[in-house]
Amino acid sequence: MKTDASLEKLRRIDREYRYLERALAVLQWDEETCLPPKGVEERAEQLALLQGIAHRRLVTAETGRLLGELGSTTENPRGDEGLPALDRDFLRVMRRVYDREVKLPADFVRKAARAEGLSQAAWAQARRNNDFPSFLPHLSAMIDLARKKARYWGYSDAGEGKGSLYDGLLDIYEPGLRASELSALFSPLQERLTALLKQFGPPREYPFLNQDYDIEAQARFNRQLMDYIGFDQSRGRLDTSAHPFTTSLGSDDIRITTRYFPGNPLSGIFSVIHESGHAFYEMGFPAELRLSCLADGASMAVHESQSRFWENIIGRSRPFWEGLFPILQRHFPRQLNSVDAGLFYQAVNQLRPTLIRVDADEVSYALHIILRFELEKQLIAGELPPEALPGRWREYSRRYLDMESQTDSDGVLQDVHWSMGAFGYFPSYALGNLYGLQFWAQMQKELPDLETALAAGRFQPIRAWLQDRIYRWGCRLSPQELLRQVTGEQLSPAPFLAYVETKYGALHRG
Amino acid sequence: MKTDASLEKLRRIDREYRYLERALAVLQWDEETCLPPKGVEERAEQLALLQGIAHRRLVTAETGRLLGELGSTTENPRGDEGLPALDRDFLRVMRRVYDREVKLPADFVRKAARAEGLSQAAWAQARRNNDFPSFLPHLSAMIDLARKKARYWGYSDAGEGKGSLYDGLLDIYEPGLRASELSALFSPLQERLTALLKQFGPPREYPFLNQDYDIEAQARFNRQLMDYIGFDQSRGRLDTSAHPFTTSLGSDDIRITTRYFPGNPLSGIFSVIHESGHAFYEMGFPAELRLSCLADGASMAVHESQSRFWENIIGRSRPFWEGLFPILQRHFPRQLNSVDAGLFYQAVNQLRPTLIRVDADEVSYALHIILRFELEKQLIAGELPPEALPGRWREYSRRYLDMESQTDSDGVLQDVHWSMGAFGYFPSYALGNLYGLQFWAQMQKELPDLETALAAGRFQPIRAWLQDRIYRWGCRLSPQELLRQVTGEQLSPAPFLAYVETKYGALHRG
Repeated sequence: MKTDASLEKLRRIDREYRYLERALAVLQWDEETCLPPKGVEERAEQLALLQGIAHRRLVTAETGRLLGELGSTTENPRGDEGLPALDRDFLRVMRRVYDREVKLPADFVRKAARAEGLSQAAWAQARRNNDFPSFLPHLSAMIDLARKKARYWGYSDAGEGKGSLYDGLLDIYEPGLRASELSALFSPLQERLTALLKQFGPPREYPFLNQDYDIEAQARFNRQLMDYIGFDQSRGRLDTSAHPFTTSLGSDDIRITTRYFPGNPLSGIFSVIHESGHAFYEMGFPAELRLSCLADGASMAVHESQSRFWENIIGRSRPFWEGLFPILQRHFPRQLNSVDAGLFYQAVNQLRPTLIRVDADEVSYALHIILRFELEKQLIAGELPPEALPGRWREYSRRYLDMESQTDSDGVLQDVHWSMGAFGYFPSYALGNLYGLQFWAQMQKELPDLETALAAGRFQPIRAWLQDRIYRWGCRLSPQELLRQVTGEQLSPAPFLAYVETKYGALHRG
Repeated sequence: MKTDASLEKLRRIDREYRYLERALAVLQWDEETCLPPKGVEERAEQLALLQGIAHRRLVTAETGRLLGELGSTTENPRGDEGLPALDRDFLRVMRRVYDREVKLPADFVRKAARAEGLSQAAWAQARRNNDFPSFLPHLSAMIDLARKKARYWGYSDAGEGKGSLYDGLLDIYEPGLRASELSALFSPLQERLTALLKQFGPPREYPFLNQDYDIEAQARFNRQLMDYIGFDQSRGRLDTSAHPFTTSLGSDDIRITTRYFPGNPLSGIFSVIHESGHAFYEMGFPAELRLSCLADGASMAVHESQSRFWENIIGRSRPFWEGLFPILQRHFPRQLNSVDAGLFYQAVNQLRPTLIRVDADEVSYALHIILRFELEKQLIAGELPPEALPGRWREYSRRYLDMESQTDSDGVLQDVHWSMGAFGYFPSYALGNLYGLQFWAQMQKELPDLETALAAGRFQPIRAWLQDRIYRWGCRLSPQELLRQVTGEQLSPAPFLAYVETKYGALHRG
């Protein structure tokens, strides 16, 4: 009985914390999609204030006492043994969240939130104006804050004990993974992808893509596309922002954004499919996890596995476009009247080196990530001064992509992540590819006639499988546990490499 | 020195309270403009939680102690005599805000916020479905909460002492005004307006208005209209919602909304001008009042005087359309090619009884208000059971407007106010007309060539006058003080009636 009451108190703290976090998410979503330019400074102050309030709601003596009492402490890890599995999972994740937050001084949290708000606004402007120097002081501040945060969590410059400062940041997104393990995964991946790229012929031209695609018409098509793949628009919406993202403002309010270029319809479309994959995951957390710390992805990489699964494995497949292309054609008859699904499928899978990560093809994408991984490791280790970043970026672009950006807007300023202090996040994208292909290999074993379903626009079997195997767990399972439970395997680049080799071999070789 | 420190502490409490109030405003703006339908319930919970947090931020023992120490108590009203005027004004208004809040139990505030969120959502749905019964329980709850609130503030059912429950609600919007005084103003106003209406001929037809006006094109024109009248869109924005409104989400983030009907371009346009008038006021509060309780209108009626000034006195004037009509015509050449500014001026001033308050003409508008005033007085006094409201509404519609709504959506469900518990708000609209015409009479005495300026689209002299006489004071002056300072007069319906009689006499008589 006492346990029940204590659990209920802890759940209430968690729920109120979630509501506050989501109020912050609304303010941030609004900043990215709606906020008038001059409203930015006050918004940053406001975010900082609310961040402090949310932090204090979670980090109270009561939370610590309740967690201790319920027996999920490091000292007494088996104290919760009599409880149902759901409660034990709740306590474990709550402890993890609490431990992170309690180690950060309230003043630091507030300062960091304010700085992040200003930094993100400065980034958006610097990107518009191709003005890295104006962003530099913010970037330096973000690096300092990230380093401080990792130190508060017990990581050290020397990398002893818990690990390096960068390990501490990586752990936010992929619990338990170290930079050294990541390097061991990335290194052969990079070699193989580089080798594969060399086997493929030069890019073809698809002139029908380089026409004028009205932005309003793109938006109309994309809303229909959301319906087509089963995005319930009574539980979410689509908006535009400088950088596409997904955010959960409520259990039934999952919002995605995209961006439009009049001369390139694919960017908007594939961002919508990508972000819908994230949204499906968030929409799939079951009622019993609502408004709790368990309503979250197993890890950022597993989250990315879902978005990249939809974007690439589904969204760049031939049967998918057999079904969807006629609809797209009706929206853009002038541009697409002489094109068919087969040609369009080729066009959305062209291997064409690009400077922009989010526009990269499946084969070279991981190279964009490995570039960022290498640079952010150096930034956090203090081996690369922030002012030297644009030069180092161009150097690595040449090395990995055989290209060099003419402007910082198309180079080091293209992504929002570092401006928010999200160092350690990028690797999730490449890991997501690996997880995604392992899940897909398993799904193919279990579900018959996937090609027929895709060509008919029937996504229900796929959604149901993902719901049952992945979504419903929220973050009750670690990414490693989830992968083992679904596929019986460890994380491996093999299925991803086999998929890339087969698909692009058929499309592009010789 | 001690005083300085105490003032600074109090200002900080006020500032944080404003930030929280504006976070709430963002959530509410989002609910009206963006929130996916299924997100409504959680949003209501979230609003309630944040409302409680904002309430607790303001209502602390420290706030009471600081206010007492600084000498602005009822017991010691001259204790602040040594302070600069700005500080004294701050303390007076802060005390008023604090007194209101401190008398409401935190639990009541939270419950009320949750109920308001649900009620507003239920209203929106009931209005869509013309389903008053589904809204009835929410309306009853809103009435109960409003009555309770007035009782907490010391008003009584019997109307003794401070006044009736309805007086308590009216005081929120127009400090110091009683229902009996309002009846004394409204009664002759109604008689004269009814008499005037009878003098005017039957409405004319303007078939060019009843054509298809594309909604996207209307939105494009309205954004240009905002630029035209000087709305700085880097400090605000325009969106759409079921009911047009203005909200300040930051000192430099003032948002307005409108709504569009394909068969009626005027509704969208005049809502934009009306809400812009509110926005100009909010944008005009000077830097020294930023993020303080003084950054507010002198009263709701003075706020409405600003919106209705722009909507009617400016926006329905002949010179205004001399300047703007050619631009509108360029947006809608097919619909307006055979129309000129003079005819359009007549069309926007047609006297045509309508069931919809926001579409009403200047002459009959006050009758819509008096109807609502009478009904809400009865609802709050407990003389009219909520379930009898639709019948009573139709009865009063016949009496005042000689019309009867066929549906509740066009009748009792048309306005959002009651669904938010905002009883006592409606009279501000009619009072705003009176204030507005008194200000206009004064402006005409002081500024030369207003007609020429309007026809040329030069609003700077008008904006500067309003800035200097009205906006810059925020709520440092009471509405009565402000009016006396600007015009040397007391509140009076005479200038409004003279304006209506002259303008509509010329347009419609005989």
